[in-house]
Amino acid sequence: MNLGASEPALIGVDWGTSSLRAFLVDAEGDVIDGVSASEGIMHVQGRSFGAVLDRLIGVWMTEKTLPILASGMITSRNGWVETPYAKMPLGACRLGDQLHAYTSESGALVHFVTGAVAEDGGRPDVMRGEETQIIGAAATGMRDGTFVMPGTHCKWVQVADGKIVDFSTYMTGEVFSALKGHTILGTLMVDADFDEDVFVMGVRAGREAPSELLHNLFHVRTLPLTDKLSKKATAHYLSGLLIGTEIASALVEAGDVEMVTVIGNSALTDRYEIALQISGVATRRASEDIVAKGHFMIARAAGLIG
Amino acid sequence: MNLGASEPALIGVDWGTSSLRAFLVDAEGDVIDGVSASEGIMHVQGRSFGAVLDRLIGVWMTEKTLPILASGMITSRNGWVETPYAKMPLGACRLGDQLHAYTSESGALVHFVTGAVAEDGGRPDVMRGEETQIIGAAATGMRDGTFVMPGTHCKWVQVADGKIVDFSTYMTGEVFSALKGHTILGTLMVDADFDEDVFVMGVRAGREAPSELLHNLFHVRTLPLTDKLSKKATAHYLSGLLIGTEIASALVEAGDVEMVTVIGNSALTDRYEIALQISGVATRRASEDIVAKGHFMIARAAGLIG
Repeated sequence: MNLGASEPALIGVDWGTSSLRAFLVDAEGDVIDGVSASEGIMHVQGRSFGAVLDRLIGVWMTEKTLPILASGMITSRNGWVETPYAKMPLGACRLGDQLHAYTSESGALVHFVTGAVAEDGGRPDVMRGEETQIIGAAATGMRDGTFVMPGTHCKWVQVADGKIVDFSTYMTGEVFSALKGHTILGTLMVDADFDEDVFVMGVRAGREAPSELLHNLFHVRTLPLTDKLSKKATAHYLSGLLIGTEIASALVEAGDVEMVTVIGNSALTDRYEIALQISGVATRRASEDIVAKGHFMIARAAGLIG
Repeated sequence: MNLGASEPALIGVDWGTSSLRAFLVDAEGDVIDGVSASEGIMHVQGRSFGAVLDRLIGVWMTEKTLPILASGMITSRNGWVETPYAKMPLGACRLGDQLHAYTSESGALVHFVTGAVAEDGGRPDVMRGEETQIIGAAATGMRDGTFVMPGTHCKWVQVADGKIVDFSTYMTGEVFSALKGHTILGTLMVDADFDEDVFVMGVRAGREAPSELLHNLFHVRTLPLTDKLSKKATAHYLSGLLIGTEIASALVEAGDVEMVTVIGNSALTDRYEIALQISGVATRRASEDIVAKGHFMIARAAGLIG
């Protein structure tokens, strides 16, 4: 972040379900400044999206009118303006072509980046927001290959020639929370420091038999019950089991993969790196802020930046 | 039920987590009378297990003292008297040898049937109560083969020479409830009549790719979102997907199985029969009351019945 170091050219907004972030970007696609807020689309009172945006980016709107790009769940049915899903292969040009311009009550012109759909034999998969992160990552030397974006709904994305050609969603994060919070598996769990050995034990169990998940879950109960696992570490075993199961399955889908790019900066992304590495796959990391580079690439493809 | 038709010889109690049932059994192992109550071990105030039992079976205790056998979660850590797990192979004789006698405050002598453990390469599996149902079913011409007991924690049991030789628990029922009640998948669900076509669609998706469950779950969201599935039927698709995934996995474990015995009388057991049949496996049905026959076989093996 180099406040004042270069001329602003664009505002990029990544507006998700539980929070939003905005970036001030210069004409080279570098981030000058960034802000965040807790008003994800589920937390906006009375659909006052425009007011949330004005407050968040108001400090950047003082001199000249900058183009604003917004991506994420903000374009879903429960968001501000619903946009259709774009089909693959999907790069900056197609996303730029399909920007949806909308003028807010206060007069701000917002260009919404639409999400992506994978048809997948009649059982569709969808994303909103991750496509912009991928376009950003693909523009920074991480051009092609397999990308994973850990989270509530983890996305595995295949990129070729800088375009998204396939992707799959795994509900691993949300399944973990539901099992921990609302099944017998959570009753023994306590907050405890991350136990990597136990996590790895879970990853190996998941990778060994990914088709046995509904059975393997019961071991999260029986291992501490028979004193084969510390009660304190039970949540880390469940986390490893789910992530190991996901990775086994996703790596089969991805084919013969030697390297996976992990997008994010959280403790969860650290866990994916550990799990991938013990699966014999090299990893590299991209920051979640790479989304701002995606906004820049799409805005430039759309001719919004000089 | 032939009240008064024959002389009572035994009282069998199946005492689970959420409810309990008791049976009055004659010297041939047939049920003369049965009662049930809602005081499963999680609903007994102040650990007053003896009082619950006295009230439930008091009407049968008027003439002579009958042996009482109790099985189920009542022998777990949260139950009345905790007993160790028995190892396999496990038949009526070993269970009879390992009965745990206990005299309640009111003087009733209760023989607890202990549960079973499968070591399974360091990741143990356990059951309490199902072993008694299996012993009962095995005594009624359904001697050997593969048994499934649908429920919160579904059990798949292998029986040879009338003895339990292996079993696996699948958390399918509890996973269904947690996903329906506490994830985005449940937000579209409404109560609706069972839709067999949609259920079968889910079963097929689960059977096709059991290692892809964490991904396939997302289709429960995307299919109604893209109008490929009626919102009304979404819960039945999820049910089919989970049961199909379980069956694919359990049938691999069971080896080349042509016939499965389904124990139970609920709408859920009907679904397992449908799912097994479309998987090319014949089914036969045993009532849950078969547990009383199990109590009888174990009591006779222990010499408690003349």
